[in-house]
Amino acid sequence: MNTRARITGVLAPVVTPFNADLSPDPERLARHCRWLLSQNVGLAVFGTNSEANSLAVDEKIELLDRLVDSEVDPARMMPGTGCCALTDSVRLTAHATKVGCAGVLMLPPFYYKGVSEEGLFRSFAEVIERVGDNRLRIYLYNIPPVSQVAITVPLIERLLEAYPEIIAGVKDSSGDWSNTKAYLDNFGKQAFDVFPGSETFLLQGLRNGGAGCISATANVNPAAIARLFATWQAADADEQQSALNEIRGVFAKYPMIPALKAAIASYTGDADWAVVRPPLVELSAEQNTSLLEDLVHAGFTMPGLERSTAAA
Amino acid sequence: MNTRARITGVLAPVVTPFNADLSPDPERLARHCRWLLSQNVGLAVFGTNSEANSLAVDEKIELLDRLVDSEVDPARMMPGTGCCALTDSVRLTAHATKVGCAGVLMLPPFYYKGVSEEGLFRSFAEVIERVGDNRLRIYLYNIPPVSQVAITVPLIERLLEAYPEIIAGVKDSSGDWSNTKAYLDNFGKQAFDVFPGSETFLLQGLRNGGAGCISATANVNPAAIARLFATWQAADADEQQSALNEIRGVFAKYPMIPALKAAIASYTGDADWAVVRPPLVELSAEQNTSLLEDLVHAGFTMPGLERSTAAA
Repeated sequence: MNTRARITGVLAPVVTPFNADLSPDPERLARHCRWLLSQNVGLAVFGTNSEANSLAVDEKIELLDRLVDSEVDPARMMPGTGCCALTDSVRLTAHATKVGCAGVLMLPPFYYKGVSEEGLFRSFAEVIERVGDNRLRIYLYNIPPVSQVAITVPLIERLLEAYPEIIAGVKDSSGDWSNTKAYLDNFGKQAFDVFPGSETFLLQGLRNGGAGCISATANVNPAAIARLFATWQAADADEQQSALNEIRGVFAKYPMIPALKAAIASYTGDADWAVVRPPLVELSAEQNTSLLEDLVHAGFTMPGLERSTAAA
Repeated sequence: MNTRARITGVLAPVVTPFNADLSPDPERLARHCRWLLSQNVGLAVFGTNSEANSLAVDEKIELLDRLVDSEVDPARMMPGTGCCALTDSVRLTAHATKVGCAGVLMLPPFYYKGVSEEGLFRSFAEVIERVGDNRLRIYLYNIPPVSQVAITVPLIERLLEAYPEIIAGVKDSSGDWSNTKAYLDNFGKQAFDVFPGSETFLLQGLRNGGAGCISATANVNPAAIARLFATWQAADADEQQSALNEIRGVFAKYPMIPALKAAIASYTGDADWAVVRPPLVELSAEQNTSLLEDLVHAGFTMPGLERSTAAA
């Protein structure tokens, strides 16, 4: 039986800082991770919002090693490790497990479309068998708007039956509450943790047995999101949720990843934070100005980010 | 100016043989490549039908090196080198160019959806600048049903203007003749070669200035497709096209990649040819029987495949 404590709560798909030459910057990444941890937010590094699929496996392994070397706690990490190629997923998953990550967030192979449930089952099963490490905990990553390949309830049933200790949960970035609810209703009584992919579903999720959330905007608004997770049974929970939704709404008016990075660049005073890898494009000057005005208008701050950055 | 002869004609996105343990088999791949060359079909290794996105970059580099080592002519090769990650695309493209490939077939980065023309332009431009080799010839790969990211006419215009020697053509697997026609109409007078992604558009393409085709079924029906390319102005061209369409239609009744491999497994007597990597799944026994019956009924053969295989 699994006796290790599961990772729960609020996690950020940590944005990946690049230098002007588009190389990843492990030191800035570690600083941002430390700030997130100080706000009680865990580290889903190498998620969609991390531009993880714009990084080679070698780059991800190097970044992970650098984080662990700089004493960012792997027990607070859930790196994304699902790639198109079976051999890439195996290599990255094995490495994340070896260095002690709490779990991995695994995309299905996403190049081929219309693949069968049997093919997806085999994909995950092969990774599990090849990694061959009973510390492995897999969180399935459902994000059909991007991956175009869905993690269905029957697929989860098959995987849980075959690998009950290893299949630990799901992140649902479908944006469809009825899908999240179906996961909760079907698997809520098992040791299977459901994380909505946005804090807009945090309270609703927690009231239905959810485990927290893994959300892009936890990169910039971590404390408030973590506070709702910690106090969701308090009288002001709905009010907290509304305040979270307002900030989320500001970022959602812009391309999300460039907007997160633009905000961090502005609040840290480090312009390189705005750099994204192609095929993404940074915000235009007009978008940047408009975003920062919107954030000021919403009373948005990132307390401790500057100080944390300067101190690190 | 570019004085090298361009690769034209019929190319196969060469199916990748795996062993039972799902490792690629470079010797069987070389044998299949030699057979295709003997039928006047070029080698678009690492295409969609090659399960290329189920292979790590290291696996592709190893396979390419083994092909070149076994004297498969790189001047007859157009390997697929477009990956999600910029750094992967650069590494694979640089290697393919270094070993002397005629060109590369480049997918756009395909994880992020709804990306801008500017972001796609930067993706291709970064690869070109980083590879930094004036022997590089890029064939853009438009396959929106799978990649979900289109290569538009304005994108091609920008790329051709910036890199007229390097942007050499396009493979259009949209399945939409009007899109292929738009490429031909816009760029037909430049040194820009348009390859429809199926032999069903071969004759129509050639009559409108196309360069040949790059088609899955060229893996199994190479001689007949190459013959139409060579004799498309002959009186029986439409009759030839109809015969090609009939064979294509048989394979199109089944999942294409497993069906191609099942046919090769049967005609070579080598059962391992049927192995696919997850997330794909081999044909069921019923599908396999039905396919082989359909092929017999259509009078289909693969002349020289057995002999070529046994002799290699």
